[in-house]
Amino acid sequence: DFRRAISEVKPGFGAVEDQYENYAHNGIVNYGSEFEKVANSGKLFIEQVKTSLRTPLVSVLLTGEPGSGKSSLATYFAKQSEFPFVRIISPQDMLGMTETAKAQRITKAFEDSYKTPLSCIIIDDIERLIEYVPIGPRFSNLILQTLHVLYKKTPPKKGRLLILSTTSNPSVLRDMDLMDCFPIQVETPSITKKSEFKAILQELGAFSSKEAELASQYFNDRVTIKQLIMIIEMARQEKGDPVENLKYMLTEFQLKHI
Amino acid sequence: DFRRAISEVKPGFGAVEDQYENYAHNGIVNYGSEFEKVANSGKLFIEQVKTSLRTPLVSVLLTGEPGSGKSSLATYFAKQSEFPFVRIISPQDMLGMTETAKAQRITKAFEDSYKTPLSCIIIDDIERLIEYVPIGPRFSNLILQTLHVLYKKTPPKKGRLLILSTTSNPSVLRDMDLMDCFPIQVETPSITKKSEFKAILQELGAFSSKEAELASQYFNDRVTIKQLIMIIEMARQEKGDPVENLKYMLTEFQLKHI
Amino acid sequence: DFRRAISEVKPGFGAVEDQYENYAHNGIVNYGSEFEKVANSGKLFIEQVKTSLRTPLVSVLLTGEPGSGKSSLATYFAKQSEFPFVRIISPQDMLGMTETAKAQRITKAFEDSYKTPLSCIIIDDIERLIEYVPIGPRFSNLILQTLHVLYKKTPPKKGRLLILSTTSNPSVLRDMDLMDCFPIQVETPSITKKSEFKAILQELGAFSSKEAELASQYFNDRVTIKQLIMIIEMARQEKGDPVENLKYMLTEFQLKHI
Amino acid sequence: DFRRAISEVKPGFGAVEDQYENYAHNGIVNYGSEFEKVANSGKLFIEQVKTSLRTPLVSVLLTGEPGSGKSSLATYFAKQSEFPFVRIISPQDMLGMTETAKAQRITKAFEDSYKTPLSCIIIDDIERLIEYVPIGPRFSNLILQTLHVLYKKTPPKKGRLLILSTTSNPSVLRDMDLMDCFPIQVETPSITKKSEFKAILQELGAFSSKEAELASQYFNDRVTIKQLIMIIEMARQEKGDPVENLKYMLTEFQLKHI
Amino acid sequence: DFRRAISEVKPGFGAVEDQYENYAHNGIVNYGSEFEKVANSGKLFIEQVKTSLRTPLVSVLLTGEPGSGKSSLATYFAKQSEFPFVRIISPQDMLGMTETAKAQRITKAFEDSYKTPLSCIIIDDIERLIEYVPIGPRFSNLILQTLHVLYKKTPPKKGRLLILSTTSNPSVLRDMDLMDCFPIQVETPSITKKSEFKAILQELGAFSSKEAELASQYFNDRVTIKQLIMIIEMARQEKGDPVENLKYMLTEFQLKHI
Amino acid sequence: DFRRAISEVKPGFGAVEDQYENYAHNGIVNYGSEFEKVANSGKLFIEQVKTSLRTPLVSVLLTGEPGSGKSSLATYFAKQSEFPFVRIISPQDMLGMTETAKAQRITKAFEDSYKTPLSCIIIDDIERLIEYVPIGPRFSNLILQTLHVLYKKTPPKKGRLLILSTTSNPSVLRDMDLMDCFPIQVETPSITKKSEFKAILQELGAFSSKEAELASQYFNDRVTIKQLIMIIEMARQEKGDPVENLKYMLTEFQLKHI
Ligand SMILES: Nc1ncnc2c1ncn2[C@@H]1O[C@H](COP(=O)(O)OP(=O)(O)OP(=O)(O)O)[C@@H](O)[C@H]1O
Ligand SMILES: Nc1ncnc2c1ncn2[C@@H]1O[C@H](COP(=O)(O)OP(=O)(O)OP(=O)(O)O)[C@@H](O)[C@H]1O
Ligand SMILES: Nc1ncnc2c1ncn2[C@@H]1O[C@H](COP(=O)(O)OP(=O)(O)OP(=O)(O)O)[C@@H](O)[C@H]1O
Ligand SMILES: Nc1ncnc2c1ncn2[C@@H]1O[C@H](COP(=O)(O)OP(=O)(O)OP(=O)(O)O)[C@@H](O)[C@H]1O
Ligand SMILES: Nc1ncnc2c1ncn2[C@@H]1O[C@H](COP(=O)(O)OP(=O)(O)OP(=O)(O)O)[C@@H](O)[C@H]1O
Ligand SMILES: Nc1ncnc2c1ncn2[C@@H]1O[C@H](COP(=O)(O)OP(=O)(O)OP(=O)(O)O)[C@@H](O)[C@H]1O
Ligand SMILES: [Mg+2]
Ligand SMILES: [Mg+2]
Ligand SMILES: [Mg+2]
Ligand SMILES: [Mg+2]
Ligand SMILES: [Mg+2]
Ligand SMILES: [Mg+2]
Repeated sequence: DFRRAISEVKPGFGAVEDQYENYAHNGIVNYGSEFEKVANSGKLFIEQVKTSLRTPLVSVLLTGEPGSGKSSLATYFAKQSEFPFVRIISPQDMLGMTETAKAQRITKAFEDSYKTPLSCIIIDDIERLIEYVPIGPRFSNLILQTLHVLYKKTPPKKGRLLILSTTSNPSVLRDMDLMDCFPIQVETPSITKKSEFKAILQELGAFSSKEAELASQYFNDRVTIKQLIMIIEMARQEKGDPVENLKYMLTEFQLKHI
Repeated sequence: DFRRAISEVKPGFGAVEDQYENYAHNGIVNYGSEFEKVANSGKLFIEQVKTSLRTPLVSVLLTGEPGSGKSSLATYFAKQSEFPFVRIISPQDMLGMTETAKAQRITKAFEDSYKTPLSCIIIDDIERLIEYVPIGPRFSNLILQTLHVLYKKTPPKKGRLLILSTTSNPSVLRDMDLMDCFPIQVETPSITKKSEFKAILQELGAFSSKEAELASQYFNDRVTIKQLIMIIEMARQEKGDPVENLKYMLTEFQLKHI
Repeated sequence: DFRRAISEVKPGFGAVEDQYENYAHNGIVNYGSEFEKVANSGKLFIEQVKTSLRTPLVSVLLTGEPGSGKSSLATYFAKQSEFPFVRIISPQDMLGMTETAKAQRITKAFEDSYKTPLSCIIIDDIERLIEYVPIGPRFSNLILQTLHVLYKKTPPKKGRLLILSTTSNPSVLRDMDLMDCFPIQVETPSITKKSEFKAILQELGAFSSKEAELASQYFNDRVTIKQLIMIIEMARQEKGDPVENLKYMLTEFQLKHI
Repeated sequence: DFRRAISEVKPGFGAVEDQYENYAHNGIVNYGSEFEKVANSGKLFIEQVKTSLRTPLVSVLLTGEPGSGKSSLATYFAKQSEFPFVRIISPQDMLGMTETAKAQRITKAFEDSYKTPLSCIIIDDIERLIEYVPIGPRFSNLILQTLHVLYKKTPPKKGRLLILSTTSNPSVLRDMDLMDCFPIQVETPSITKKSEFKAILQELGAFSSKEAELASQYFNDRVTIKQLIMIIEMARQEKGDPVENLKYMLTEFQLKHI
Repeated sequence: DFRRAISEVKPGFGAVEDQYENYAHNGIVNYGSEFEKVANSGKLFIEQVKTSLRTPLVSVLLTGEPGSGKSSLATYFAKQSEFPFVRIISPQDMLGMTETAKAQRITKAFEDSYKTPLSCIIIDDIERLIEYVPIGPRFSNLILQTLHVLYKKTPPKKGRLLILSTTSNPSVLRDMDLMDCFPIQVETPSITKKSEFKAILQELGAFSSKEAELASQYFNDRVTIKQLIMIIEMARQEKGDPVENLKYMLTEFQLKHI
Repeated sequence: DFRRAISEVKPGFGAVEDQYENYAHNGIVNYGSEFEKVANSGKLFIEQVKTSLRTPLVSVLLTGEPGSGKSSLATYFAKQSEFPFVRIISPQDMLGMTETAKAQRITKAFEDSYKTPLSCIIIDDIERLIEYVPIGPRFSNLILQTLHVLYKKTPPKKGRLLILSTTSNPSVLRDMDLMDCFPIQVETPSITKKSEFKAILQELGAFSSKEAELASQYFNDRVTIKQLIMIIEMARQEKGDPVENLKYMLTEFQLKHI
């Protein structure tokens, strides 16, 4: 089935697997129609980059709450594209670099991509890349301006480029006049339905269908996939029946939201 | 006819074609009277620079929404002028440069122009050039002041200079006291009429007159030419009837505006 | 009994004792159920790091008033974990360092931890580490961003990491978008009950059970364990009956709160 | 007549003509009583510098809308003075200089002037000199403070100095506590009367008295001399009757004001 | 009597007298019960540092209006303590040093103190040390953070340390989150009673008991000891009866308060 | 008479005359009782510095509108004191210096003064010294803090020091917490009475008593002495009766006030 197919993507990442594996650490679970809608829109814009002559640059913004799976989805799409050139630009790989060095590395990635006819660049976690903090607010205007220009620069010499960016704070990007760089926006959903909850318990928590059904009765809030994985693991850690523990987690224990 | 004439401009750009071709990537379409009004005003100020002795410096500001075609029009006018000296100052060519280096390159361009009796300088995307971001707000005051002085400096020794600048945020320029540098302002229009919509579908989307007529019935909003090109391409990408796809795009799919 | 067991932890700290002893200077007193709840939650997340494959990174935030015992508890948990790699990152060890040097040392500690299969890092007093001051407000955005990225970076190569952070100002962390880095939060309680007060008088103040009982009658406010130790010592310092002195301290003398 | 006399000043600028000619590009037109009032006050303060022992320093501020003719008038007065030492300090001559270099050059000009018994210094466009922008607001405090001190410093050793400064934003100077440096302030007027309008059409637009009379009927607003020159030139550029064109310009075409 | 005893302290300062004498320039006058309360609390915390094992660090904040005698009292307590290590950290000794150099010298003083079993450090005038100014507000965050960390760092290796800090602006310290560094706060009182006023006139102004009695009738406000010394000296300077002069000073002449 | 005596002070300035003569350019006119009150208070604090042992440091602030004569009075007092060490610290002598260099020079002046038993330092125009501008507001905190510390530092080794500072903006000093550095404040008055006006016309304008009487009838506002000198000189410059001219100046011509 479809779900199986997708979660099998991870083992097959191949050559750039090293880069990928830090992102979709727990694979990509197809937890229902919400996920499939997102997955399908991905197919559409990948195709457009491949074939349209008039739009050599397609820039997509993945939004969603912290932990909703943006980084994992971006790498999943990049993998799906099977483009010859894929580059992940992540703040995790630029620790300790000055803002000048960061801006240069970002520019370099784009210039490299211009040499390939079909490329994909992931800009993971824009807020961290530009070193944004709401108090002040402060951020690296150098990196921001570099991104802004690169987001709008048509690849020269018939090159085609797909840019996948992630953010959990689109309103900040709007305030920074960056939003008109993203003609396409995709929202990574959080888990809100019992059926989604159940599907994930089975896939990632090794719950039987019956246990998952039972446990899903206590779910009536909203949770991100990353939080849910943490909850499942804590429930499995504690002594006693995992379903009971999960119930306790959901109703008593406070997993603090932001 | 006129439309044809114009869209044939692109192939003939000649020597500086390399510089130009990144800007009006999809040519210049004459989509109706709104466009022609803008095109005519262009002819007027080009003529003035050529012949008036009392106004050796003519400075024009092209305003309009992001994607409305400002950069393409500026290069189109520069091409039309057939001035011996044309220089494009664009943030895309100054990535990674310090603000001092940028200010120097801008100054250099003007000083070079002073050596030619008849020159045209394009200052593309003032906000990006001055590294403006509304949060803070921040920007390079060095580059801003450099522009401000150069915008007002009469070319020495009987030189004549046409400056074409583009911005999508004229209110910021006003707040920066920069507006009195532009005696002439031209607004690049967005697409608002069915007839304009139809003309562009035919010219850029390879729709037949009948298909274009049909599709234009679903258009009743406001869109920039750049957005419209993106929509057309997505409609052509999807399986099925392009007119139906376009209808879907216009009515369901959310191309996010700023 | 349990209390005895815990307060005996200190002498046995072993190899890293040097690092530890500046933190829990007066040992860890089990003053009742409030303390035990906190101690138990510690056991739970230590276990989770040891065994769960899906959550190789567990990040805990210890909150509480200044002097409530956060630093002492963090070192106590680190000691309890018996992980082969333990590192304390404290502003006290970075006096005189530039923010760059501090960020590098922090990054270095995490990189070292990635080489060990099971690690624990204490980030003591986040506000001081990021040099935060509410007036302005000011802080080192470099250190903040470094922490933010490291808090979210999954240890590569199957490594597991427990991060224990302390703060007395969680609302500032929230304002800095740092809160979603801490799926688990533990509040270090202040002393509010007579029974807790009494237990501490006996354990740390060498009061007999009867004296402690007597003195605890005058306690009807709220005090941190650090303040209480100061009060006990002042009471013992003064000439006359310690119980009377303590009464005087609690009712007359103004130990200023913030 | 007087008007003729004045507009003949330009060709006779003599030795420092190079410096001057960039400023009063189109000469100085006597367009009526408003102009003469300003011209006379100029004579008065020039005389005072020459002869009074008690006021060796006379500092004058020329205010007026952008394009009202401030810079041209300042150079006109400097020329009139026939002082042996005249220096123009203009942002146009300091492009690319650091604020330190600018402050030094300004200081140098004053120090040079102190060596001459009778001197005149023009400080053109104070806002640009101090790199002022209302957003922030930002400006070079170094240059501002340098000016402030120099404006108040009595020339040593019996020297006499006339300082002519121009600004289009006197309220900013007031906010900067700079206003008490200017005991004398002269406002450069904008064109508001039909008679003034007519005089300028004849002098600068080569309109016959009758044409000028006709055209001036359509003028009922307020315009600066610089804008008016631009309008006249555009009107002459277009095909057809210049008077008709002028009418069109004044009533339809939008020359944007700030 | 007690007053005499205390004011005799000054001559006997001994070895570190050089450092001390700039602070309590006019000795320490015992002007009554308000003073004695403060003096006694000093004895208490000095004793605590000497003997308590659980509180090796005692940090005291002396607050009070400018001129109320904070610096003099701090040196008086340091002298009283007879600790083998006493160090005064004062902005007066750091003129011209960079903030880095200042922070280093402060850190050095604490590190030196850690080598002595019993130490006292005076941090005089915290606002000046951190270069605080309310406009902005501005201050050296480097020095502030250095102080903040040092104020909380327990002396290693069984060392004991008394920190005496002075400020005339405790509310700023509160705003800077610095207040929880000072478990003990002592307010240096201003002169408000006729009896205090009289005692000081006799001790420092060489007034006879009768003159002092007479003059104190005109005192009905509030004055700091430093202001009072200034008033006495001005009264003695003027020709005529000192009591009459003092009356004039108190009732007519405006010694401006802040 | 007294007036004559004072205005003869200038010629006799002697050795340091060079420094002085730039300040009281037009001498010191005794224009009546307001002036004498100020002059007398000067005598008082000069005497106090000379003789009091308890107040080795006397710090005076001269306030008053721009042009009211603060700098001239400060140098006049310094001259009157006949102290062996007099130093003028003026922004006019520090043009082009960095804030560090300025702070060093100020510190040096004080340190030099400490070597002399009886000294006077003039701090002219505090706002300019600290490079203050109300927009922002901005200023050199380094220089401000240096002044703040020096203003409070008792001269070591029995030295005595009189500090004379001038400002036209005491409220800014108050906002900067600098006001408690000035136990004595003297306001330099502006001219508000006809008698004062008349006295100055005679002394500085060479008006006969009768002319002065006549002219003073038209004076009913408020003017600083510096403005008045400018008005007198302009009146004398113009052709015609000086009294008539003065009348015109006072009633018609706009000498702009701040
Ligand atoms: N359908 C899915 N989509 C996304 N992630 C999934 C899905 N199924 C499972 N996961 C797992 O959920 C986790 C999502 O974490 P991820 O870091 O991608 O979230 P994020 O939104 O980027 O978080 P952050 O805001 O912290 O950057 C990963 O471990 C991933 O393997
Ligand atoms: N009449 C026209 N005017 C302008 N652009 C046109 C026209 N017809 C077609 N185009 C095409 O529309 C696109 C306009 O994009 P362009 O980059 O010039 O817009 P822009 O306003 O500068 O955008 P941005 O605000 O992002 O800088 C180009 O691909 C151009 O070839
Ligand atoms: N149960 C306990 N929990 C924590 N601390 C305890 C406990 N029992 C005794 N103590 C002692 O209380 C003191 C707590 O001080 P600690 O420095 O840990 O507080 P803190 O919250 O980190 O303070 P700060 O906010 O100033 O950093 C230590 O001396 C510690 O030995
Ligand atoms: N009577 C006049 N006074 C001033 N300028 C005149 C007069 N007659 C003609 N002119 C012309 O008008 C123009 C005035 O431009 P100028 O640059 O001096 O204005 P400005 O006020 O300094 O403008 P900006 O605010 O942009 O600096 C010049 O070309 C000058 O030759
Ligand atoms: N009992 C007393 N307490 C404090 N100072 C006294 C006392 N008796 C006399 N004095 C004298 O009063 C003066 C107090 O000045 P000091 O500089 O200590 O005040 P301060 O509060 O530190 O002032 P500032 O706020 O300016 O730093 C000294 O000259 C000191 O000798
Ligand atoms: N009685 C007087 N007091 C002060 N100045 C006088 C007096 N009589 C005449 N003058 C003259 O008045 C002028 C006062 O100018 P001065 O520069 O001292 O004023 P200021 O208040 O320091 O001005 P600013 O605020 O610009 O620094 C000097 O030329 C001085 O010679
Ligand atoms: Mg992510
Ligand atoms: Mg553009
Ligand atoms: Mg702590
Ligand atoms: Mg000008
Ligand atoms: Mg003090
Ligand atoms: Mg002055």
